[in-house]
Amino acid sequence: MTRLADIPELKSLAARRDLIRIPHEVDVPLTPRVRALIDAPAFRRLARISQLGLVALVYPAANHTRFEHSLGVYHNALVYLKQLSTDPRFEAAIGVEAAETFIVAALLHDLGHWPFCHPIEDMRLPGVPSHELFANSFLLTGEIADVLRDEWDIQPREITAILSEKPRDDRGRLLRSLLSGPIDIDKMDYLARDSLHAGVPYGRHFDQSRLIGSLCLNEAGDALAIRDKGRTAAEMMVFARYVMFSEVYWHHTVRAATAMLQQAFYLLHGQLDLDALFRLGEQALCDELLRAAGASPAAELLAGLFGPTRRLYKRLAEYSYFQERAWYEQIARRPYAWLVACSEQFAAAASRRLGRRIAPHEVLFDAPPVKREVEFNVDIFFPKENCYRPLGDVSPVITTLATRQFDDFVKRVRIFVHPNLIDDLRALGPLDALLTETLARMDS
Amino acid sequence: MTRLADIPELKSLAARRDLIRIPHEVDVPLTPRVRALIDAPAFRRLARISQLGLVALVYPAANHTRFEHSLGVYHNALVYLKQLSTDPRFEAAIGVEAAETFIVAALLHDLGHWPFCHPIEDMRLPGVPSHELFANSFLLTGEIADVLRDEWDIQPREITAILSEKPRDDRGRLLRSLLSGPIDIDKMDYLARDSLHAGVPYGRHFDQSRLIGSLCLNEAGDALAIRDKGRTAAEMMVFARYVMFSEVYWHHTVRAATAMLQQAFYLLHGQLDLDALFRLGEQALCDELLRAAGASPAAELLAGLFGPTRRLYKRLAEYSYFQERAWYEQIARRPYAWLVACSEQFAAAASRRLGRRIAPHEVLFDAPPVKREVEFNVDIFFPKENCYRPLGDVSPVITTLATRQFDDFVKRVRIFVHPNLIDDLRALGPLDALLTETLARMDS
Amino acid sequence: MTRLADIPELKSLAARRDLIRIPHEVDVPLTPRVRALIDAPAFRRLARISQLGLVALVYPAANHTRFEHSLGVYHNALVYLKQLSTDPRFEAAIGVEAAETFIVAALLHDLGHWPFCHPIEDMRLPGVPSHELFANSFLLTGEIADVLRDEWDIQPREITAILSEKPRDDRGRLLRSLLSGPIDIDKMDYLARDSLHAGVPYGRHFDQSRLIGSLCLNEAGDALAIRDKGRTAAEMMVFARYVMFSEVYWHHTVRAATAMLQQAFYLLHGQLDLDALFRLGEQALCDELLRAAGASPAAELLAGLFGPTRRLYKRLAEYSYFQERAWYEQIARRPYAWLVACSEQFAAAASRRLGRRIAPHEVLFDAPPVKREVEFNVDIFFPKENCYRPLGDVSPVITTLATRQFDDFVKRVRIFVHPNLIDDLRALGPLDALLTETLARMDS
Amino acid sequence: MTRLADIPELKSLAARRDLIRIPHEVDVPLTPRVRALIDAPAFRRLARISQLGLVALVYPAANHTRFEHSLGVYHNALVYLKQLSTDPRFEAAIGVEAAETFIVAALLHDLGHWPFCHPIEDMRLPGVPSHELFANSFLLTGEIADVLRDEWDIQPREITAILSEKPRDDRGRLLRSLLSGPIDIDKMDYLARDSLHAGVPYGRHFDQSRLIGSLCLNEAGDALAIRDKGRTAAEMMVFARYVMFSEVYWHHTVRAATAMLQQAFYLLHGQLDLDALFRLGEQALCDELLRAAGASPAAELLAGLFGPTRRLYKRLAEYSYFQERAWYEQIARRPYAWLVACSEQFAAAASRRLGRRIAPHEVLFDAPPVKREVEFNVDIFFPKENCYRPLGDVSPVITTLATRQFDDFVKRVRIFVHPNLIDDLRALGPLDALLTETLARMDS
Repeated sequence: MTRLADIPELKSLAARRDLIRIPHEVDVPLTPRVRALIDAPAFRRLARISQLGLVALVYPAANHTRFEHSLGVYHNALVYLKQLSTDPRFEAAIGVEAAETFIVAALLHDLGHWPFCHPIEDMRLPGVPSHELFANSFLLTGEIADVLRDEWDIQPREITAILSEKPRDDRGRLLRSLLSGPIDIDKMDYLARDSLHAGVPYGRHFDQSRLIGSLCLNEAGDALAIRDKGRTAAEMMVFARYVMFSEVYWHHTVRAATAMLQQAFYLLHGQLDLDALFRLGEQALCDELLRAAGASPAAELLAGLFGPTRRLYKRLAEYSYFQERAWYEQIARRPYAWLVACSEQFAAAASRRLGRRIAPHEVLFDAPPVKREVEFNVDIFFPKENCYRPLGDVSPVITTLATRQFDDFVKRVRIFVHPNLIDDLRALGPLDALLTETLARMDS
Repeated sequence: MTRLADIPELKSLAARRDLIRIPHEVDVPLTPRVRALIDAPAFRRLARISQLGLVALVYPAANHTRFEHSLGVYHNALVYLKQLSTDPRFEAAIGVEAAETFIVAALLHDLGHWPFCHPIEDMRLPGVPSHELFANSFLLTGEIADVLRDEWDIQPREITAILSEKPRDDRGRLLRSLLSGPIDIDKMDYLARDSLHAGVPYGRHFDQSRLIGSLCLNEAGDALAIRDKGRTAAEMMVFARYVMFSEVYWHHTVRAATAMLQQAFYLLHGQLDLDALFRLGEQALCDELLRAAGASPAAELLAGLFGPTRRLYKRLAEYSYFQERAWYEQIARRPYAWLVACSEQFAAAASRRLGRRIAPHEVLFDAPPVKREVEFNVDIFFPKENCYRPLGDVSPVITTLATRQFDDFVKRVRIFVHPNLIDDLRALGPLDALLTETLARMDS
Repeated sequence: MTRLADIPELKSLAARRDLIRIPHEVDVPLTPRVRALIDAPAFRRLARISQLGLVALVYPAANHTRFEHSLGVYHNALVYLKQLSTDPRFEAAIGVEAAETFIVAALLHDLGHWPFCHPIEDMRLPGVPSHELFANSFLLTGEIADVLRDEWDIQPREITAILSEKPRDDRGRLLRSLLSGPIDIDKMDYLARDSLHAGVPYGRHFDQSRLIGSLCLNEAGDALAIRDKGRTAAEMMVFARYVMFSEVYWHHTVRAATAMLQQAFYLLHGQLDLDALFRLGEQALCDELLRAAGASPAAELLAGLFGPTRRLYKRLAEYSYFQERAWYEQIARRPYAWLVACSEQFAAAASRRLGRRIAPHEVLFDAPPVKREVEFNVDIFFPKENCYRPLGDVSPVITTLATRQFDDFVKRVRIFVHPNLIDDLRALGPLDALLTETLARMDS
Repeated sequence: MTRLADIPELKSLAARRDLIRIPHEVDVPLTPRVRALIDAPAFRRLARISQLGLVALVYPAANHTRFEHSLGVYHNALVYLKQLSTDPRFEAAIGVEAAETFIVAALLHDLGHWPFCHPIEDMRLPGVPSHELFANSFLLTGEIADVLRDEWDIQPREITAILSEKPRDDRGRLLRSLLSGPIDIDKMDYLARDSLHAGVPYGRHFDQSRLIGSLCLNEAGDALAIRDKGRTAAEMMVFARYVMFSEVYWHHTVRAATAMLQQAFYLLHGQLDLDALFRLGEQALCDELLRAAGASPAAELLAGLFGPTRRLYKRLAEYSYFQERAWYEQIARRPYAWLVACSEQFAAAASRRLGRRIAPHEVLFDAPPVKREVEFNVDIFFPKENCYRPLGDVSPVITTLATRQFDDFVKRVRIFVHPNLIDDLRALGPLDALLTETLARMDS
C-alpha cells in the first residue's frame, strides 16, 4: 500500500460502504479496525460525556456527545486527506503511515476529555490533570493500545506524540496544523455540530465545500494554508465561530451556570480524588459531586444545576467594552481566585447595605479569562501572483474580529446572584458605590 | 380573554418573544407558567430519558431527550391551534379554557414515560404499570399539580382526562384526535426530530407547512381532517413514518439490542421494584439493572448494551414476507413468552448439533408483535364537491402501506445469537431442519 | 489512461478544481473540453429553453433552464461512475473510452429538446420531428461534432448511438440503464432541481447518498441494480416522482395552460415550419407562435399564456378514479384529435343550452395520455442470500404506485373553459346531461 | 377594519390560504386584489427580466426573475408588518391604510427596473431615465393604476410617494426605513434568493427568524431598529451581504461581462431610444442591442455575451488594496468616461509595444464606482438599560466591513482584454511601464 487512496478508511469513504450515520446526514466509514477502537471502553466512555455540558441548560437539545463529535472529526480527517492527496507536495510529505497515524489521532483526539472539562480547566486549579497526561492513561495501555498495535500496526506513542508533543519536523507541524488551527478538522466539526444540536444556524454558516476544495500547504510546507478562492470561506468560518461564542458558548445564562459549577468545584476540589472523578461519565460525575457536597454551600449550587429542579442564578449586572468600560477593564482577565475574593467582598458589602447576611457563594463574579480565543493565523495562497499572504493582511474584518470584537465585546464581566436575592439587590439601585467599595477592598 | 389568539403562549408565538430554541431552528415560546412546568422535577426528569433508547447504539447521535421532544409537541400544539383558530367551526367548538388544557396536555403528554418504555411494554408482562397510572402519579400531586392549579387555573384531572380517558363528547374526541392519529402533533414532532438527530433525512420528508395549512375538522366535527390540497402531504407523512420504521426504529441491529434488553428484563423483572425503577433517569435505570443482574445470565446481556464495551448479538437468520414466508408466518405475532420458549428449544437443538452447550439466553428470537402500526384513519375534505372521503379511499398507496408493506415487509422475524456462536452456527448450513425441530417441540 | 479515476472530469471532481456552481450547492467540474462543449451554440441554446415551460405560470420561480439541468445530469454521470468504479464488474465492463462516451452523452442528452417539447409531443401530430433526429442535427455536424472529434477523440455517432439507438450489447444496455430507468441520472437531477426551483420540498425527498452508495449491477450485468440497503431509498425516489407529478407536473392549473398551448399548436401547426421553429429559444418561439396566430382563435389562447396579461382557462369539471369514475373511464387515454372533437361537441351542446355561441376553442378537454409514467423496473440485490429480486416483488407500495395511484388518481380528466364562460356554465348545474349528449355524438 | 391583523393579505398569511409558492418553500398569500396587480402587464413584464442579469454567465442557474423577487419582498412586507404589529408604538404610528400602501409599495418596488439596470446606471450617462420616473409611467396610468384605485382604494400617487419622494413625516420615514436600509425587506429577500439560485450558501447565512423577532422602532420612532438580542443576526446579515458581493455580484468574471456590456452600451447609447428600449423584456432588449450594433465594434462585445457562443474577455491584471495599492488608488472611483479614455490609451500603448493594432474596445478598464455599498446605519435597542446605540458603536466588525473591507478589498480594479489578446499581452511581462505611460497620458 503506497498511495493514500488505498488506506482502508479512504477506500470505504470512496465506495460508501460500511458506514455509520451522524448528523447532518454524514456517512462515516467504519472499517473493522475503526470499529474496534470505538467499541473499546475508553472510547465508549465518550458516549457518556456531552460535548457542551452546561449549555444544555439553555439550549435543551444540545446534549450531543463527544463520541459523536469524535466520529465527525475522524470523518473530517478523511475528507482533508482525500482533498490534500490531490496536492503533490502533500503526497510527498505525508506517506501512508503518517496518514494512518493522523486518522487515528483525529478519532482519538478527545480521549483525554472529562465532563465539564473547559470550565474546570479555565480555573487553573492545582491538581487538575492535563488533558495530555489524562489521555495517555487511556492510550498507552489497555484495549486501545492493543488495537493500535495489533490492528493498525501503530505504536501508541506515535498517537500521543502527534496529539500533544511539540512537533519535531515539518511533517509533524503540518499534521498538527490540520488538528489545531483556525480551519482545523476539530473546529470544522464542532461549529457545525454544536450549532445543529443547539437548534441555531450560526455555526453551519460557512462554505465547507469551498473551504475544503481550497486547502493547500503554506510556503514552507509545514502548515495548512488556503488558496485565495477559499479566503472568503475562511473568513466565514472565523465569523461563524465568533457568532457561536456570542450566542451559545458565552450566552449569559450559560455563563451563570458555568459560574455556579466553577464555584462549587472550587469549594469541593480539595476533598475530591480528581483522577478517579474525571474517569466517570457525566451523570456519574454529577452524582459524585452532589454526594461530596453533602450539606455544604456547594450543595445548593449543584442542586440548581443537576438536581430535580433547575434553578439558576440571575444576572445582576453586566459590563462590556461598550457598557461601562471602566468596570469591565478592572475585572476582566483576573485569576479565578481573585474573582472569588471579589465575590466575597461584594457579598459582605451588600450584606451591610441590605442588613441581612448574604452568603459568599450567593454572589458570583464572572469575567473573561486571560487567554484570547480567535485564531486566524493561516496563510492565503495567490496562485496568479504565486505568493502567500497572512489572512489578517488581506482581511481587515478578521483582524478586527480577532483583536477587538471577540474578547472585548462578546466576553463580558457579569455579576450573578442567587435568585432569592435578585429583587432586593436590584432595589438598591445603581451598583457603582458597591463596586467601588468592593474593588477598593481588593486592592488593599 | 375570549379569543384563542389571546392565550399567552399563542401571543408569545406571534410576537416571537421569550423563546427557547430547539432543532431544527424552532423557537418555542416560554411563558412564565410554561417555565414553571418544565423546571419542575417531574418534567426535568424527561431530560434524563432519551427519546429513542437503544437506537443510539446504531445511530450514535440519536440521544435526544423526551424533554426536547415534549417542547416540540407543545410547539406543534400552538401551531395547530393557531391554524385551526382560523376555522370558525373550531373556534366555536374549542374555547380558551379547552385550548389551554390542550396546550398543557401536549406539553405533559410524555410524563408517564420511563426509559426503554416501548420495548418493555411490548412484552406485556404483569406488574408493568400503564403509562396513564404512572403519569397520574406525577400529574395529580406535587409541583406540577400545584403549578396547574395556581398558575394555569386548571385542575390536574382535566389533563389526565384529555390524555388517557375515553372522550365523552365531540370536543373531547376532537382534541384527542390532535394528540393521537395519523397526523397528530406527536408524530409530527418525533418523525422529524428522530430523523434529524439520527442523521437521516427520512422523517423530515413531508411538507409540514402544506399539511398544517390544510387542517380542518371532519364532517361530524369530532376529529381532525385534511383539505384535499393537503392529501399528498398526508400521504408523505405516512410514507415518512414507514421509512423511519424501516430504517431506524426496526433497523436489524436496533432489534438485536432490543431483543437483548427484553430478554434481560424478562429474566430480572420478578426481582425488581418496577415502580421505583421506572422513576429513575435512564443512566440510573441502567445502573440499577446491572446491579440487579449480579452474575446471572442477564448480566452478560446488559453488559453488551450498557457496559464499558459495546457487544451486540449477531443476526443468524431473517425471515420476511418475501424471504421464506412460511417461517415468517409461523413465528410472527406470538406472545413474548412463546418466543422465549422457542429460543430455548432452538438453543437446546443447536447444542445437540454442535456438541457443546448453548445457554438459553444466547439465542434470541425476535418477531413482529400483534399490534399493527400504521394509522391512516383520517378524512379528506373536498371543498369543490363539499364532501369528505376517508384517506384510504382516495389513496391506494396508503392502503397498501397500511395493510401490507408495513407489517409484513418491514417487521421481520429474526434470530440473534451471541457473537461467540455466530461462526459455528453459520457453519451448520441451512437452518430449516433446526427450525423444524424447534417448532415441532413448541407444538407438542 | 487505463483507470476510470484518471478521466480528467473525475479527477477534477475529486480535486474540487475548476468548478462551476449550480443549486443546490453542487460543484460541477468544468474541464477545458467540457467548457468547449457547453460554450458551443447548440448547447448555449439550452440556456434559452426552460426546463418546465408552462409550469412557471403556476410556480413562478420554476424558470430554470435545460442548460442548468444538463450540467446536473453530467454531474450525476460523474458521481455514478465514481461510485460504480468501486465495483470490479463495472470496471471490467466499462473501460475509459466507454465511460467518456457516457459522460458526454449525459451532458448532451437534452440537445434534441425544444421549448414546450413534452406537451407538443404528447399530441402525436404528424410532422413533429423525433428528439433523436433533431438532436442528431446538432450532434453530427457543427461545433459540437468538431469538439467531440478534436478534444474528446470521440466520433459523434457514438454519442447518438448511446442516446437513441437500440443497444447492441451488454455494455450498451448497461450504460443506457444509467441514462434511462427508475433511478437514472436524469430523474435523479430533475426531481430535485424542479422541486428546488418550484419552491416545494417534494422532489428532494429521497436519500441521494444512500441510493448512490447502493448502486450495483444486475445479475446479467446489463443493467443498473440496487443493493438491498438502498431499497427504501429507491422507493422514496419513486414516491418523490409521484408527488412531483401530483403537485407540479400535473397541477390542474398547469394542465389548463397545457391544454391551451396544445389547442393553439393544433390549430396552427399546419402553417408552421416546425424544424425552424423548434430551433428557436423559448421567447423567440413564443413570439413566432403569436405572429403566426395573427387574429385567429389561436391568438387568444396564446395571448393568455404569453401575452402582456396572464389569463388562463378555468376548471369547469374534474373526473378521476374516485370522482365519478364512469366519466373518467370514457374520456381518459384517447387520441388528441378525439379530445378536440369532443371539446367541439361539448361547445356546440353548451351553446344550445346557453343560447349563445361558444367557440370550439373556448372549451378544452384534457385527459391522461395512453402512456403510463411510473418506471420501477429495477432489481434489488440481496448480498446475504446472494440473490436478485425485482423491486416490485419486495415492495407492494411501489407496485400500487405504479399500477394504480399514479395514472388513475393523479392524472385526471378535466374540462377547462374560457374565463368569460365559467360562471354561465357553472350556473347550468350538473354537467351529466351535457356530457351524455357530447359523448353520444362522439360515438355516432 | 381597524386592526392590522384584519388586512386581507395578513389574514391570508395567518390562515395559510390562497398561497403561491416560491423558493425556498415560501408561501406567498395571493388575495384577489394582489392577483389583479401581478397579472397586469406592467408587473408580468418583471417575469421577463432576470434579477441578476449577466451573473447567469458565471452562475448559470441564477436566472430568477424580478417577478419572483417582488413576490418575496411583498411576503417580507407582510412578515415585518405582522411582527411589528405586536409593538404598540408601531400600531399607533401605522394604521391600516398606511400599512396597505406599504404592502403595495413592497410588491411594486421594482416596477421601474429594466434589464441590466444596475450596470447601465453605474455609468451615469445622460438620457438614462431615473427609476422613479420610469416606474411612474407604469404606476400612474394603466391597469396597475386602475386596480389600485378600484380594488385597493389607494391613489397611485401614494405609492410613488412612499417609493421615491422624500418622506415628509415620521410615518413616512419609518415606512421608508423598512423598504431601504441595512435590514430592509428588499435585501432580506434578494440576499437569500440570489444565493439560492446561484447555488451558493452565502446570502442565506443569517438568522432571519431571530432578526425579524428583534425588529422594533428607534428612539425617535421614525426608523426601524433592532433589539439587542438581534444584534448578532444583524451583523450576520451585513456580513452575508459582503460575501455575496465578494463571491457573486463582484465576481471577476461577472465584472468582465459587465465591462463588456457597459462598453457596448456606451458605444451605442446615442443611437438608441432608451425609453422604448427599457420597456422591453430582457431577451427582446438583447435582440434590439444586437440589431442596433450592426457590424460596429459593439457587435463583437454583445455577441460574446448574448450571441450563440459565449466568449468573455479575460482578466489581464487586477489591483486591490493589498495587491499593488498604488495602481488601485489611481484608478478606483473615477467617472466611466475616464475609464474609457484610459482603456483607449492603454490599447494604443499596447499596440505600439506589440506592433499590431489593438482596437480600443478590446481593452476594458473596470474599477469600483464612487458610491460605497455597505449600509449599517441602524440602532440597537438595549431594553435592560433602556438605551439605543448605533450598530457601529457596538460592533467593530461592522465598522470595519463598512469602511474598509467592502470597498477596498472586494471591489478591485481590473483590466480585461479580448481573449485573442491575452497570451500576447501576458507575454509582455509586468505591466508597470505600460500603466505608467497610460496614466501619464491621462494626466496630460
